[in-house]
Amino acid sequence: MKKATQQQIKEHNRNLVLKTLLEHDTISRADIARSTRLTRTTVSDIVNDLIEEGLIEERGIGSSSGGKSPILLGVMEDSRYLIGLDLAQNQFSGAIVNLGGEIRETVNLPVNDVDGQTALGLVYEILDRLMDSEIRPLVGIGVGTPGLVNTSSGVVVNAVNLDWKDLPLASLLEARYRIPVRVLNDSQAAAMGEYTYGAGRDQDTNLIVVNARHGIGAGVLIDGRLFQGDGGGAGEIGHVVVVPEGGIQCRCGNYGCLETVASAQAIVNRARSLAADTTETLLPKDQRAISLDAIVDAFSAGDPLATQVVLAAGRYMGLALSSLVGILNIHNIVLTGELTRFGVPWLEAIQASMSRSTLFGLAEATRVSIGELHGNAILLGASALIWTNYSMLFNQ
Amino acid sequence: MKKATQQQIKEHNRNLVLKTLLEHDTISRADIARSTRLTRTTVSDIVNDLIEEGLIEERGIGSSSGGKSPILLGVMEDSRYLIGLDLAQNQFSGAIVNLGGEIRETVNLPVNDVDGQTALGLVYEILDRLMDSEIRPLVGIGVGTPGLVNTSSGVVVNAVNLDWKDLPLASLLEARYRIPVRVLNDSQAAAMGEYTYGAGRDQDTNLIVVNARHGIGAGVLIDGRLFQGDGGGAGEIGHVVVVPEGGIQCRCGNYGCLETVASAQAIVNRARSLAADTTETLLPKDQRAISLDAIVDAFSAGDPLATQVVLAAGRYMGLALSSLVGILNIHNIVLTGELTRFGVPWLEAIQASMSRSTLFGLAEATRVSIGELHGNAILLGASALIWTNYSMLFNQ
Repeated sequence: MKKATQQQIKEHNRNLVLKTLLEHDTISRADIARSTRLTRTTVSDIVNDLIEEGLIEERGIGSSSGGKSPILLGVMEDSRYLIGLDLAQNQFSGAIVNLGGEIRETVNLPVNDVDGQTALGLVYEILDRLMDSEIRPLVGIGVGTPGLVNTSSGVVVNAVNLDWKDLPLASLLEARYRIPVRVLNDSQAAAMGEYTYGAGRDQDTNLIVVNARHGIGAGVLIDGRLFQGDGGGAGEIGHVVVVPEGGIQCRCGNYGCLETVASAQAIVNRARSLAADTTETLLPKDQRAISLDAIVDAFSAGDPLATQVVLAAGRYMGLALSSLVGILNIHNIVLTGELTRFGVPWLEAIQASMSRSTLFGLAEATRVSIGELHGNAILLGASALIWTNYSMLFNQ
Repeated sequence: MKKATQQQIKEHNRNLVLKTLLEHDTISRADIARSTRLTRTTVSDIVNDLIEEGLIEERGIGSSSGGKSPILLGVMEDSRYLIGLDLAQNQFSGAIVNLGGEIRETVNLPVNDVDGQTALGLVYEILDRLMDSEIRPLVGIGVGTPGLVNTSSGVVVNAVNLDWKDLPLASLLEARYRIPVRVLNDSQAAAMGEYTYGAGRDQDTNLIVVNARHGIGAGVLIDGRLFQGDGGGAGEIGHVVVVPEGGIQCRCGNYGCLETVASAQAIVNRARSLAADTTETLLPKDQRAISLDAIVDAFSAGDPLATQVVLAAGRYMGLALSSLVGILNIHNIVLTGELTRFGVPWLEAIQASMSRSTLFGLAEATRVSIGELHGNAILLGASALIWTNYSMLFNQ
């Protein structure tokens, strides 16, 4: 048990008020108090601070439910801007985002298997370009990166694909750009994104976001806070073993991990291998041309081979999700990442497989859905890191 | 995010002080402040209240580290008593426990497959006998039961073995005994026990306790609080699928659940089935006589068949723990329950299997150990529920 200081309580309450404000176009002080269960005095004090900082404004009069008509408040969404970065497998993306989660400017760079210092150079290039824009004030940078991250120190402990080990990314970027930087694992960033701006927006409590692309990972929010575990790696479901006997070797060194059978890479590999023995498929004859895009097209056109491969991947995902649900008993699961391009049939394969392997009643109570941020969950979630460091918004 | 009220903060801080006091035979106010990071004023106020309530006392003078020698404080462990109940498969147990987790009196009753109202009758019988004792004051009852429990309402939602459905156990017992009653799932109770009095005692943060007996379940403590998920069922690893293809049907209806291959029941079933085809074993010839006790004896004597069955069960347990560790990234796992009678060889089979199926670095960072409460984790944990309802201790 940790001590809750007055300062922490104050920040917590400020976040609560600001989150409530962000969820509504306009809202009265009284309704904020009702929704947050804070006292009216506390709400008024916080609201006054926020107005003084230019973060919110009064926006006319609402309808009365008896007494005096209430003054409505709204967030000035363009009073501050954040930068979010998504360091995906094939492409690094950066965006300037306003306080409402609206993207104002983006820069995308292809990655082409670069790593180490070169990959870091691409991060600088994106940020240089974004910092050159005239959009102001920019109050912070959030980075969503694959791999294991120490969020409190901003160090990328290990990102295999990027060949980063103990890279002090936050310090490097803060030295270069002179604004606060937060670094987060990409799946955890996706969870922050969906919680703040997407499918988890109306949920106040627990949420799991599973990010399925080249790799697979999950972000877990407990009581509205990112749960990272003892080593920062909570949610690493990509390396949960789902094929205990005779599985394929994973890039992590073990065998039968979820990533070997349910990730974008696994789907591409499996389609290539099966296509070699099949003539009746819409997939390209040239194995090297069988990309995720090609499989998405074939799948949409009802190609049996693509269907078989994608639905099998979905079933393995469902098996892993049933472990997740059994262990955490969290009722709201959101799927993000490239694989959501396979849409409802893939989702249904996941749900059916979950039902088969989850304790009766639990699967029924659990809602699995596809996220609402259309590929921007990580960018937005990385930028939403600001909400864990509220003080960044002040005194600009 | 929920509002932290002044009252909650006060209770939280009181718990913190009391927990710190319970961890030490004697401790000074200054050391409590250091350990809890509360201010000296806050600690002094709380300590004064606790002395007034007769919960703690001053116990002489400690050695000085410079200034005035400090007054030492200690919990009056026999100033209050709690009752803990463990509703296990073959035996219901009840105990009167003091504030230091010392058991003062116990009542055990065999169960013999009774369920429904008859099982409830056994609960009454145990409590009637304990309430008849002269130990006073008894301030609360905590019950650890198998099945899904709604802890806040004290209702057993579903306990298959006991044939209890929506049983308002807390209300029934409160009406009969006129003291506060809390009801908790047995694995979650075991976690509370180890956290409060056992292997998790010195840990202040995250802890997983896996309770392996007739069934298998886990209790998860996050930041020192029991995490129950959205439906109260967090930690239900007994029904995580570890044999995805061709598994045995579980009592839950699904196939290949952890309980079908790693529980006490699974070990007994497997030993019976293999013993039928083996002459060279120390296990009884009569299959019905192959009980868990018999297998423990044979295992200790190095019997190959018992060894094979028990270690295979351990390997499956390790596989499930690797999912648990991958998802939660909690570094401290404690095993409790009957299966811990297989001791170090079983533990090592679990650890080896975990290493093989857990992301590199994570298994090494995770400590799996056998609990310290020797079968009393649930009794003690159920009684420790008092710590979540601290007000029970006052005004007796």
